[in-house]
Amino acid sequence: MSTQDAFDVDPWGVVEHGLDLSGLARAESVFALSNGHIGLRANLDEGEPHGLPGTYLNGVFELRPLPYAESGYGYPESGQSVINVTNGKIIRLLVDDEPFDLRYGVLRSHQRRLDFRDGLLRREAEWTSPAGRTVRVSSARLVSLTQRAIAAVDYTVEAVDGPVRIVLQSELVANEQLPDGERDPRAAAVLEAPLLPEAHEASGTKAVLVNRTRYSGLRVAAGMDHLIEGPDRFEATAESSEQQCRISVTTVLRPGERLRMVKFMAYGWSATRSLPAVRDQVEAALTAARYTGWNGLVAEQKGFLADFWAGSDVEVEGDVELQQAVRFALFHVLQAGARSEERAIPAKGLTGPGYDGHSFWDTETFVLPVLTYCLPAAVDQALRWRHATLPMARERAAQLGLAGAVFPWRTIHGEECSGYWPAGTAAFHIGADIAAAVVRYVHATGDVEFERAWGLELLVETARMWRSLGHHDAVGRFRIEGVTGPDEYSAVADNNVFTNLMAQANLLAAAEAATRHPQEAAGLGVDTEEAAAWRDAAAAMFIPYDENLGVHPQADGFTDHQLWDFERTPADNYPLLLHYPYFDLYRKQVVKQADLVLAMQVRGDAFTDEQKARNFAYYERLTVRDSSLSACTQAVIAAEVGQLDLAYDYTAEAALMDLHDLGGNTGDGLHMASLAGACIAVVAGFGGLRDRQGKLSFRPRLPSGLRRLAFALKVRDALLRVEITHAVTTYTLRRGKVLTVLHDGEALTVESGVPVERPTTAVEAPAERCVQPPGREPARRHAQAGVHAPAPPPVEHLQAE
Amino acid sequence: MSTQDAFDVDPWGVVEHGLDLSGLARAESVFALSNGHIGLRANLDEGEPHGLPGTYLNGVFELRPLPYAESGYGYPESGQSVINVTNGKIIRLLVDDEPFDLRYGVLRSHQRRLDFRDGLLRREAEWTSPAGRTVRVSSARLVSLTQRAIAAVDYTVEAVDGPVRIVLQSELVANEQLPDGERDPRAAAVLEAPLLPEAHEASGTKAVLVNRTRYSGLRVAAGMDHLIEGPDRFEATAESSEQQCRISVTTVLRPGERLRMVKFMAYGWSATRSLPAVRDQVEAALTAARYTGWNGLVAEQKGFLADFWAGSDVEVEGDVELQQAVRFALFHVLQAGARSEERAIPAKGLTGPGYDGHSFWDTETFVLPVLTYCLPAAVDQALRWRHATLPMARERAAQLGLAGAVFPWRTIHGEECSGYWPAGTAAFHIGADIAAAVVRYVHATGDVEFERAWGLELLVETARMWRSLGHHDAVGRFRIEGVTGPDEYSAVADNNVFTNLMAQANLLAAAEAATRHPQEAAGLGVDTEEAAAWRDAAAAMFIPYDENLGVHPQADGFTDHQLWDFERTPADNYPLLLHYPYFDLYRKQVVKQADLVLAMQVRGDAFTDEQKARNFAYYERLTVRDSSLSACTQAVIAAEVGQLDLAYDYTAEAALMDLHDLGGNTGDGLHMASLAGACIAVVAGFGGLRDRQGKLSFRPRLPSGLRRLAFALKVRDALLRVEITHAVTTYTLRRGKVLTVLHDGEALTVESGVPVERPTTAVEAPAERCVQPPGREPARRHAQAGVHAPAPPPVEHLQAE
Repeated sequence: MSTQDAFDVDPWGVVEHGLDLSGLARAESVFALSNGHIGLRANLDEGEPHGLPGTYLNGVFELRPLPYAESGYGYPESGQSVINVTNGKIIRLLVDDEPFDLRYGVLRSHQRRLDFRDGLLRREAEWTSPAGRTVRVSSARLVSLTQRAIAAVDYTVEAVDGPVRIVLQSELVANEQLPDGERDPRAAAVLEAPLLPEAHEASGTKAVLVNRTRYSGLRVAAGMDHLIEGPDRFEATAESSEQQCRISVTTVLRPGERLRMVKFMAYGWSATRSLPAVRDQVEAALTAARYTGWNGLVAEQKGFLADFWAGSDVEVEGDVELQQAVRFALFHVLQAGARSEERAIPAKGLTGPGYDGHSFWDTETFVLPVLTYCLPAAVDQALRWRHATLPMARERAAQLGLAGAVFPWRTIHGEECSGYWPAGTAAFHIGADIAAAVVRYVHATGDVEFERAWGLELLVETARMWRSLGHHDAVGRFRIEGVTGPDEYSAVADNNVFTNLMAQANLLAAAEAATRHPQEAAGLGVDTEEAAAWRDAAAAMFIPYDENLGVHPQADGFTDHQLWDFERTPADNYPLLLHYPYFDLYRKQVVKQADLVLAMQVRGDAFTDEQKARNFAYYERLTVRDSSLSACTQAVIAAEVGQLDLAYDYTAEAALMDLHDLGGNTGDGLHMASLAGACIAVVAGFGGLRDRQGKLSFRPRLPSGLRRLAFALKVRDALLRVEITHAVTTYTLRRGKVLTVLHDGEALTVESGVPVERPTTAVEAPAERCVQPPGREPARRHAQAGVHAPAPPPVEHLQAE
Repeated sequence: MSTQDAFDVDPWGVVEHGLDLSGLARAESVFALSNGHIGLRANLDEGEPHGLPGTYLNGVFELRPLPYAESGYGYPESGQSVINVTNGKIIRLLVDDEPFDLRYGVLRSHQRRLDFRDGLLRREAEWTSPAGRTVRVSSARLVSLTQRAIAAVDYTVEAVDGPVRIVLQSELVANEQLPDGERDPRAAAVLEAPLLPEAHEASGTKAVLVNRTRYSGLRVAAGMDHLIEGPDRFEATAESSEQQCRISVTTVLRPGERLRMVKFMAYGWSATRSLPAVRDQVEAALTAARYTGWNGLVAEQKGFLADFWAGSDVEVEGDVELQQAVRFALFHVLQAGARSEERAIPAKGLTGPGYDGHSFWDTETFVLPVLTYCLPAAVDQALRWRHATLPMARERAAQLGLAGAVFPWRTIHGEECSGYWPAGTAAFHIGADIAAAVVRYVHATGDVEFERAWGLELLVETARMWRSLGHHDAVGRFRIEGVTGPDEYSAVADNNVFTNLMAQANLLAAAEAATRHPQEAAGLGVDTEEAAAWRDAAAAMFIPYDENLGVHPQADGFTDHQLWDFERTPADNYPLLLHYPYFDLYRKQVVKQADLVLAMQVRGDAFTDEQKARNFAYYERLTVRDSSLSACTQAVIAAEVGQLDLAYDYTAEAALMDLHDLGGNTGDGLHMASLAGACIAVVAGFGGLRDRQGKLSFRPRLPSGLRRLAFALKVRDALLRVEITHAVTTYTLRRGKVLTVLHDGEALTVESGVPVERPTTAVEAPAERCVQPPGREPARRHAQAGVHAPAPPPVEHLQAE
């Protein structure tokens, strides 16, 4: 079974038929449930077989030493790794004392379905035990979007062909044994038995297990309570030990009879609160959940999601697979951000241990731009988390000899956890990425209070960092040297265009915000001289340009470098970083992921249309997309420069990254930024949305493969719906009174109840399709079929003898 | 006691009075004995107290894993560390059953003297035990320069004040306990108990201990035999165990009576030979040494050194401290290289575990240029070692995607052991440094057979590496990008001038050698097209130049970088690498060690005199000398540009690096390259020696502090002596018939028996003294005193009230 065929195409869900043991880990990520606070991988109810068991709590990590063959000043000595906390998902089933294990016996049918509208993962299985007894198992699972600490399972087993003794064991298991780690540096470090026992209790249908992490000292409590319905007579027993709690239910089912167990799980954790406090918090959540009941939790979930989709759905007509993928993307972005609440949104959300559970610039650059227009409260929370880490970021700046704040390249708690500084700490652009997210959020929501209380300080401290990192040269240009831009196949270069343009915006935004909030700015020590220094540095920012080639070098000297020998690079040698040393990648013209092209998206005002087209064509030849953070950006600029079919191909690649496991590592967790990027590709690419200084502008255009595109954006108190066909674009206010937008440069005032129509932007006859490195072209998306075409078979000339 | 006062000034030796417990480690390095095969730190005979016990065998190392917080393709997974092998130096003494331990009782006198003319380390001590018994101990120690496997000790104890029971325990001890490692990354990793037992035996006065290293699988045998002389009656017993062999001698001495023990030690090791073979090799060496006897070994040592000094002495008149330091330097360089015999010459020689016992580019760039003209056979051996590692270097090149051979930045056995590639593997210049050493050796010796059999292949494989590492740009210039030059405060830059000039010479030398040895070149696969490609790349080599400033940037863009803020750098923050992150050092104009200035020494032909003066002044302001590999080079170019007093200061700094412990880490081992550099500073700086294409040229000039300088050089079959006073320079042939040299540009033919005199080059009125970063000026050397002046006291204005 190819990865493409793993799941049914369905516009509102993902369906899996049968059970592919080799694809378990991937399915566990795709079907993962989360509310941003708790994350449950889609491990089978019975625990085994599994790809990678995973239960995560946002912010719960263990420390581990970071070793260096040769150490250096300022290298972080301690890393942070997300840990698999107490597993509360487990409901083991014994059928006449034979464990329900799909690797044995006969699996007559098995189906799982994730529904984007009610947020439930449903499972149906019919199984005959090795001894010949057949049962039907159905379960539904949710992680509540309305009750942050709660997850629940509705589990039913039905006897099919004769009286059968059933035992259900519902468990809480700490320190599950994990599969061995891989050698791929991208896979997470595996930490063994991180949970020390603190307390355990079980009675009736309820149990609580409290543990503490060994080095990070976090107290984690997991609780469960149950409702059991079955034939008249069943027995329940409760047991607990240091590593495990268990509620067992036994009965005998005659054919057609069912035993149903509703399991409520609650999680709580704290770095400071006492054992009784954390335990009570979990018990209280259980009580509330039990009061709400399964049906109540399901109803709340549906209501939450109905609201979300009403304001945020993206409709894609003409390509049902892309439609599914974009909703899948939105659903998971929502799950990652909904209730993260002053904690980080990790690169994999809470769907897997990839990248050690760290958050990167991905959050501010890809995830938050999507959430800003559909769930702005989540952006508020995510940026408050950044604000909360300012003391650590200031300390890091001081350690590095810089002013202001240096945010970590990768972290869970806030400290820098990057063990290779050229591709970590040197990527100072993360400061400007955070600043841009602040500016975007404030413009989109008008949340002046946020800017005053949180945003201003983030802008000021990042601006201070830039001012101290860069310097004016002999002719007055402001230069930023020795830094790494988004492209990880270059490092430690001078005047990376993306970095310099983002820093420029950061410096100006800080100066402007300080002007808007003079009192608070003064409280942060900002005076008019400091703001003037920011404005001056921004005005003098050096942006290198290669006059000979007529393109922007990604950084000083880049276009002088040797071209990567793509012709001699075998297909198996991608991703290049696993087959070539950094030194070789860094010194040649080869691009892992959009860098200059991303600069053209986020700072499009700094480039002429002609420069955009020339730059895009130039970098297309060099970009190998060994990162999942590239296709979406290439899609946006491809659309802008009129390469609509190419944009369509890239959009599909970004959207299908996980459903089709294009990177081969979906099993470690979903690529949250690529999923968010798929939404950006559609809205900013085909919708042409740009948000500069709070003014939304659109340049709609559709590829031939799509018939209609519609999306909605929350802007201040308005909900703007944009519907695009090849002929006409319609702007409608669904909420709010009036909103001014730009359509293809023309200012439109959209009023409530009065949709405005304009012809969809005519795109010039498409230029020749841009060329990518051989073998690295995106798969062509065929308009009619709406699916990727298989690679053409090798041409063989059959000759008659 | 300041470090300057630790040792007496003596033109032919180093003398220590008393015993400074805090300076033990330093003295152990300064007084270390070695023949390049065996190295003995100057640990006290009785073993304790010690700074750092050390007995080393060239090439005996243990493997250790190299850890990475974030691993990457091509990172070495295994490191090599020199290990402290079986200690055979130990002779413990019991005085009436109280151990002779200088930390207890009363040390009435203690003196150690290293004599450069006979190579012996002598010790005299008079000590009263806590119980009141006084003894005199005298010992002499040597590591034979004529019998490679042999070291020996002549040990005598004399009773002073009454009959005393004496026990001597002469030992072989494996796996000595070492002090804990330090956090300074420059200090070596400490490996615990690396020696596994294999065999042990002791009988009569003889014992042998055989061990094997755990991971590297090297078999090490140590043996000892003894001659004992004393009053009529003494007893000797022999014992052995897995970790230790012991010969004990007991007697009673009346006042004035002496017990003398001559201890012969032999070492042998092999990666392949059997246990009996290695054991027999050691026993055979012992037999030969015993046959030679102590007096015989001493006579051989004297004879070897008399020959050496006759051909290699550097006479410095007017500064006896510098005279001592230069002879100290020559003596230790000789010890490091004399019998290394197809093994590496480590950065610390065999005097300590610093840098893990690794060899770097130091060997070819600093040590071999000295040995070439005084002990050319050692150069032959050292370069044959490089040749022997070619299979590993070719494998490394293939791994890195390059042609030819990539030699390791640091290694013992030949594999790359650098755990931080920007300051390791990226320093590709090591290939050219090796090539330059080959060319220099062949020119100086005329050893065509060496070139044919070994040198050619080294030249060809390094040229191939350069050709594949660089590329031609659009206008035809040959560029070498993403490499690190000598200065470790910059990394991974484009077109490092030193690297490009060295690569240019390497490419040309390979093409020329291939022309001289067409048959062997063809055997290596070199055809006329390949040689043409080398010549073309050399001709097209790009050398960046900053037209605005009129100086060469160290690498592309260097002179555009921000200047390091020296004014705000506290004195305690040097060396900078321990107080600032690499990212900050790399992106600013601050130089750890001569880089562009070294290029001006080794490729002086590529610069005009005016460029040299301007470049030198420019880089003087930036160079902090946080490396011991800098002062000597700055001395040479300072002399060339007429800054003679500055050259004098730098020369003294290089020469006194270890005698005055200027880097604070002499305890880890001597700075072999700085010691060699001191000789270079004198000969190439004040003598003005340059050796281009086999033609020796001189531009003699003396600083005001020196009255006379004389040195000798072995050139082919000639021995040329050069004697320089302020007025006259005299060239004399001491061996050979005729030699042509350049004196200040004038060709001189020097014939046997006919000294040629010329006026010593007149130096223009000295320009203003070049300026260094504040606080990083070399100590001023005062002409009359011949000693460094203490820092001037802070000026205080005393005012009358």
